[in-house]
Amino acid sequence: MKIVVDAMGGDFAPQNVVAGAVEAVKEYGVAVVLVGISERIDQELKKHQYPKNLIEIVHAPEIVAMDDAATVVIRQKRQSSISVGMGLLKKEGYGAFVSAGNTGACVAASTFILGMIPGVDRPGIGCIFPSLKNFTLIIDVGANTAAKPEHLLQYAKMAKIYAREVLGRAQPSIGLLNIGEEECKGTDLEKEAHKLLEEQEPLFIGNLEANEVYTGKADCIVCDGYVGNITLKVSEGMMESVGKLLKREICKNPVAILGALLLKISLKDAKKSIDYSEYGGAPLLGVDGIVLISHGRSSPKAIKNAVRVAKEQLEHNVLEKIKKEMGPGNG
Amino acid sequence: MKIVVDAMGGDFAPQNVVAGAVEAVKEYGVAVVLVGISERIDQELKKHQYPKNLIEIVHAPEIVAMDDAATVVIRQKRQSSISVGMGLLKKEGYGAFVSAGNTGACVAASTFILGMIPGVDRPGIGCIFPSLKNFTLIIDVGANTAAKPEHLLQYAKMAKIYAREVLGRAQPSIGLLNIGEEECKGTDLEKEAHKLLEEQEPLFIGNLEANEVYTGKADCIVCDGYVGNITLKVSEGMMESVGKLLKREICKNPVAILGALLLKISLKDAKKSIDYSEYGGAPLLGVDGIVLISHGRSSPKAIKNAVRVAKEQLEHNVLEKIKKEMGPGNG
Repeated sequence: MKIVVDAMGGDFAPQNVVAGAVEAVKEYGVAVVLVGISERIDQELKKHQYPKNLIEIVHAPEIVAMDDAATVVIRQKRQSSISVGMGLLKKEGYGAFVSAGNTGACVAASTFILGMIPGVDRPGIGCIFPSLKNFTLIIDVGANTAAKPEHLLQYAKMAKIYAREVLGRAQPSIGLLNIGEEECKGTDLEKEAHKLLEEQEPLFIGNLEANEVYTGKADCIVCDGYVGNITLKVSEGMMESVGKLLKREICKNPVAILGALLLKISLKDAKKSIDYSEYGGAPLLGVDGIVLISHGRSSPKAIKNAVRVAKEQLEHNVLEKIKKEMGPGNG
Repeated sequence: MKIVVDAMGGDFAPQNVVAGAVEAVKEYGVAVVLVGISERIDQELKKHQYPKNLIEIVHAPEIVAMDDAATVVIRQKRQSSISVGMGLLKKEGYGAFVSAGNTGACVAASTFILGMIPGVDRPGIGCIFPSLKNFTLIIDVGANTAAKPEHLLQYAKMAKIYAREVLGRAQPSIGLLNIGEEECKGTDLEKEAHKLLEEQEPLFIGNLEANEVYTGKADCIVCDGYVGNITLKVSEGMMESVGKLLKREICKNPVAILGALLLKISLKDAKKSIDYSEYGGAPLLGVDGIVLISHGRSSPKAIKNAVRVAKEQLEHNVLEKIKKEMGPGNG
C-alpha cells in the first residue's frame, strides 16, 4: 500500500515534506506518493538520493494556503494537493494520506471525499502528548469545535481502539477533560458526556483536570475540539517561551552556559520524549480512510515519523478495526 | 484599612496562611484580620513573632471543604471563614479579602454578599501569567464557565483598568483567546465577542491563539472561564511534569546533576519570573469589593504576596476606578 503525502502542505513545503518523505522511504522501505506541483517536487527530489521505484509524483496544480477557508478549498480548489491526494485513497493501492497543510481543509476534505465511518458522526483529531508515563492520546484537538456528548463518546471508543492497536495499551484508560473531578463539574457538554461515558464505556475513569494531561493518569483523554486545541497550543507556546526565557537568562551568565551544556549532552532521552516531531502526525479518526495531520511547522523528521505512523496504522489494520467496532450492533 | 484573610482556606491551612499573613504584616506593615477557628489560628500564631497590634482574629466556626458545592456554602455554611470574612468587607475599616480556599465558594459568596458592580453582569477571575515580556493578565480563569459575549467585553474593560492601575501599563493591549487569528474563527461566543470588542474597545488587538499566551503579545487576554481554567491548569501541570521528568532524568547522570546545580545557582531571576507564588492572588473582578483568590496549594510566600496585591489595590483605589469606569454613562 502506498502512502500519499501532501507535498505542498506546511510552512516549509515542499522542501521539508520531500526531505521527510525521502527519509521515510529509505528508513522504512515504504512506497510514497508525493502530491503537488510536480516541477517543484522534482526540484526538491533532485537534492536527494533514494530508491526511485519507491517515490511517485502525482501532479496537483493548486495550492491550499494555511488560511484558506475549509469550505472554499472543498468547493473551489478541487485540484489542490489536499483534494487530489485525498481522492487517491479511494483508489486501489493507496493506503493513507499525510499532510502538514491547512488542518481545517484536511478535515473538511476527509469528511467530504472519504466520508464518515458508520457509527461516527464527526471526525476528531487525536494528538499524542508526552507524559510522565509515556504518552496520552487526546482527542479532539481541533476538528470539531461544537462537540456534542455523543461525539465525545465516539471519540472515546475510537481512541481506545487506536491506543490498543497502535500504541500497544491492552486496556487503555479513558478520561474526560474537565475543570473539576466531580461529575457535576463543567458545562452541559461535559455533564452529559460524563453520564454517557459512565454508562457505555467500561474503561472510563472519570473527569480529569487539565493539570493531569501530562501526568499520564489516563491513556486517552476526550474533549471538545476547541478546548483540545487550546490545550495543545498553550502547551506548545509554553514550552517555546520557557525555552526562550531560559536561553536569554543562560546567555547572561557563563556558569549557566556551562550548566546548560552539561545538561544538554546528558539529557537526550528527556528531550526526545518531549519533542513533538518524534510522534509524527496526529491521526484524524472517524473518517473512512487513514489520514494523518502533521504540524504546520513540521521538520523532515516530523514528516518521516508521520509516514511511519501511517505505515503502522496500515500494518495494524486500524481502520478496519475501528469500522468493525464502531459499526451497527457494537454501539 | 485592614486586610481580611481566610485562615482556613487552602490545602495547607491554617499553617501556611497564618505564616504568610505574619510575613505580610512584618514586611508591609499592613493590618491583617485572620478569620477562622480561633483556637487553631491562635495555635499557629504562637509559632511566630509579630507586632500584636497588627493581627486580629475573628472567629468563624465552620470550615468550607475544597469540594463543597458553592451554593451549599452560601446557604448552609453562613458561619464559615469565607462567609464571615466576606461579610466583614461590608463594615467600615475592612478593605480586602484574601482566600486560598474553595474558589467556587469564594466567587459565589462574593457575588451574594458583596454584590456586583453596576455595569458588570458576572465576576471574572484575573490571573497573572508570566510572559517573555513581563506578564499577561488573563480573565476569566474559572469564575464564569458560561460566558456571554458582553461578559468578555466587561472583562476586557476591567482588565484594562487593573493592568493600568496595578500593573503599571499605560495603554494595556487586549486580546481575545481563540483557536485562530482570523475574526471568523471560534465558536459563536468568540465571534460575537470579537465584534463587540472591535466596536467598543480601542485597545483591542484581535484574536490570539493559545500559543501566544506566554509571548506577551497582549497585556490582557479575555476568555470564557472554562477555557481560561483549562489554560491555567494545563500550564501548571506541564511545568510540574516537565520538572519531574527532568529531575528523574538528571538523577540518572552525574554530569547532568552538575549541570543542573550550575544552572540552579545562576538562574534565580528566571525561576522567580515563572514562580506563581511571586504573583500572589488572582483578583476577582466585577464584585463590589476587593477579593483575591490564591492557589489552593499556596505557600506562605504566595499568601504574603496576595496580601501585598490586596494592599496595592487599596492604595491605587482600583475598586473605585473600576466602579466609575464601568458605571452607567461609561459603557
